[in-house]
Amino acid sequence: MQKMKKMREKRRIYLDHASTTPLSARVRRVMAPFFDLSYGNPSAIYKEGVVAKEALREARKTAASVLGARSDEIIFTGSGTEADNLALLGTFEAARKKTPHFITTVIEHPAVLEACRYIEQSGGSVTYLPVDQKGIVRPENVRRALTPKTVLVSVMYVNNEIGTIQPIKEIGRMLRSYRDKEKSRFPYFHTDASQAPNYLPVNVERLSVDLMTLDGSKIYGPKGVGMLYKRRGITLEPVIRGGGQEGGLRSGTENMAAIVGMGAALEEAAATREKESKRLKKLQEYFFSRLNEVLPKAIVNGSRSERVPNNINICIEGLDGEYAVLLLDARGVACSTSSSCRTLGENSSSYVINSLGNGRRCAGSSLRFTMGRGTTRRELDTVLGLLGEVASLGARR
Amino acid sequence: MQKMKKMREKRRIYLDHASTTPLSARVRRVMAPFFDLSYGNPSAIYKEGVVAKEALREARKTAASVLGARSDEIIFTGSGTEADNLALLGTFEAARKKTPHFITTVIEHPAVLEACRYIEQSGGSVTYLPVDQKGIVRPENVRRALTPKTVLVSVMYVNNEIGTIQPIKEIGRMLRSYRDKEKSRFPYFHTDASQAPNYLPVNVERLSVDLMTLDGSKIYGPKGVGMLYKRRGITLEPVIRGGGQEGGLRSGTENMAAIVGMGAALEEAAATREKESKRLKKLQEYFFSRLNEVLPKAIVNGSRSERVPNNINICIEGLDGEYAVLLLDARGVACSTSSSCRTLGENSSSYVINSLGNGRRCAGSSLRFTMGRGTTRRELDTVLGLLGEVASLGARR
Repeated sequence: MQKMKKMREKRRIYLDHASTTPLSARVRRVMAPFFDLSYGNPSAIYKEGVVAKEALREARKTAASVLGARSDEIIFTGSGTEADNLALLGTFEAARKKTPHFITTVIEHPAVLEACRYIEQSGGSVTYLPVDQKGIVRPENVRRALTPKTVLVSVMYVNNEIGTIQPIKEIGRMLRSYRDKEKSRFPYFHTDASQAPNYLPVNVERLSVDLMTLDGSKIYGPKGVGMLYKRRGITLEPVIRGGGQEGGLRSGTENMAAIVGMGAALEEAAATREKESKRLKKLQEYFFSRLNEVLPKAIVNGSRSERVPNNINICIEGLDGEYAVLLLDARGVACSTSSSCRTLGENSSSYVINSLGNGRRCAGSSLRFTMGRGTTRRELDTVLGLLGEVASLGARR
Repeated sequence: MQKMKKMREKRRIYLDHASTTPLSARVRRVMAPFFDLSYGNPSAIYKEGVVAKEALREARKTAASVLGARSDEIIFTGSGTEADNLALLGTFEAARKKTPHFITTVIEHPAVLEACRYIEQSGGSVTYLPVDQKGIVRPENVRRALTPKTVLVSVMYVNNEIGTIQPIKEIGRMLRSYRDKEKSRFPYFHTDASQAPNYLPVNVERLSVDLMTLDGSKIYGPKGVGMLYKRRGITLEPVIRGGGQEGGLRSGTENMAAIVGMGAALEEAAATREKESKRLKKLQEYFFSRLNEVLPKAIVNGSRSERVPNNINICIEGLDGEYAVLLLDARGVACSTSSSCRTLGENSSSYVINSLGNGRRCAGSSLRFTMGRGTTRRELDTVLGLLGEVASLGARR
């Protein structure tokens, strides 16, 4: 009995799935043979290589089918960050001599923002679009920022901190007709969809995107693998150069286990999407509905409607967010204050929340809970039960 | 009995360990918990993150100790290729405006050569040093190529095709005294040591190197992970930009399982080095001693003495190397003709062997057998027994 109680106490409540997810048991099984049984290099021409090449082909086909894309449009990378870099820096490098212009938003992931900073330092220019109070970028702002020099627009599908869903389809359609009108190949449209596949369709045709980033470590797949969808006809320069793997766009011996795992994880995300979204939407609504019972002044950061169902991000005025995370940690709850990925030199307050209307009060006083496949209502009850105490202990003095 | 025979027939003889190695069982065990039990993001400040950060710190310490380096000098990357790119492109980017000069050799891996091509296209210059008939670069040639603009010398430790060991220590010492004399921080000395750790010491002090590339997939570690040793005081720009992981030099959520596996694999390589080198040296000598019984005219490509013990690379004049690989494959043997990593647009003949004196006759007519932990004398006997038939069937018409 004592032991049972101890075990229950020890059980952690993990609510940081936007930071990283555990590996799905099924995905892990699919990956297993590629560590030691089927370890061939797909560049080799003998049997072990052919087997690996076939598995690579299958993983690419699986990934492409989830996106409604063609196999030759899939480039496997070492991370979501690398896929973002390949989209932005690869476009920049191909157009470098023409002092190209880029459009992005102030709420992008550091993988996009730091690539943009490099572009600015290297002779390109970048427009950073604001978001509205709800954390949504307006398509008409994208339209207004376009210049004849614009080569790429990069807008994330789902924000990693506040979970807001950006109007990708609208922006994609607008850019498509802009290109038609201007009779130009540019601008390309890139979206970082790392946080999307568990909850939203990622069909590249329906979204009208030309480049799309995905990340294994956010969809119950392995860490150390990402993917860039690149529409046929789009020209990029590689970021990593060498043996010419991945159509010359990403050199290095293929990480077979991870690539096969990426394909399986994407497939699983698509298969569980509808059911899991409904389940989490209910939990999210439950949390929001009970939040003000516990903390009357707490507010939800970002749109409630245009939001993935697993994201809860709340502002508690006066809270020391980082300290509150540690208080919750000591009570068995893993959550975060902003993203776990920060731009260099930034402090712990959130540039995403700072960009919302109430940013100044909330940037350092917010908590992000991101639910996942294992999250239960009971866990949310526990968190809700802790919030009052945490808000009071964690208040700035 | 019939079944036993069938099983024995089916057993493959894998002799392409320079292309990639299977994952060590011990390394696999060490990696296992990081897939689903301990899946935290080391950037997070709660318990799961702290546990991951501690494992990351330990892996870095382990890797550093094998190199005689300090933990803060280790940068984990997504592959050996990426580590090479970081060394070369990272140095180039930091010195870009000064039209810097690089020195390398004609026998480097494509990860170095393609980075050099980019440097040349982008305003830098590169000297490609030849090797002698034995496949060894001469330190005095490095010395002669130095200019006041030289920022980096990159010479591989062990060639991946012919296994020749380059005089890294001599070049390192020479460069050190050159820098002292010139009172300059430059040139840095980089070595791609991907093929070395199983057989040679990789102590960065004794080798006098400033930057060293290692690759998990060549040392019985996982694929999808590499490492760059970067001496304190060396300034690089990142190749992949974002959340600022790895001291800002390699952004992206850390691939914990692979990083922990990389540390364990390096440790294992160091622990088994002496014994395994002796064992393979005997097998190598055995093969070379019996080679001319089987094929009187076959010659060994590259130095026999300055060579890692697992590499057998032979030239059989008139042989269609690629066809011979397929013939051997059909007979149960996995080997290769040149490297499995080729520079873009290159045909199947080897630029490494082409750079030796007898290159023209041998570049498309060579076979590489690279032994590993599982290789036995019986396997070599089988290969020797097949070579006569393969040489005759595989002769160009």
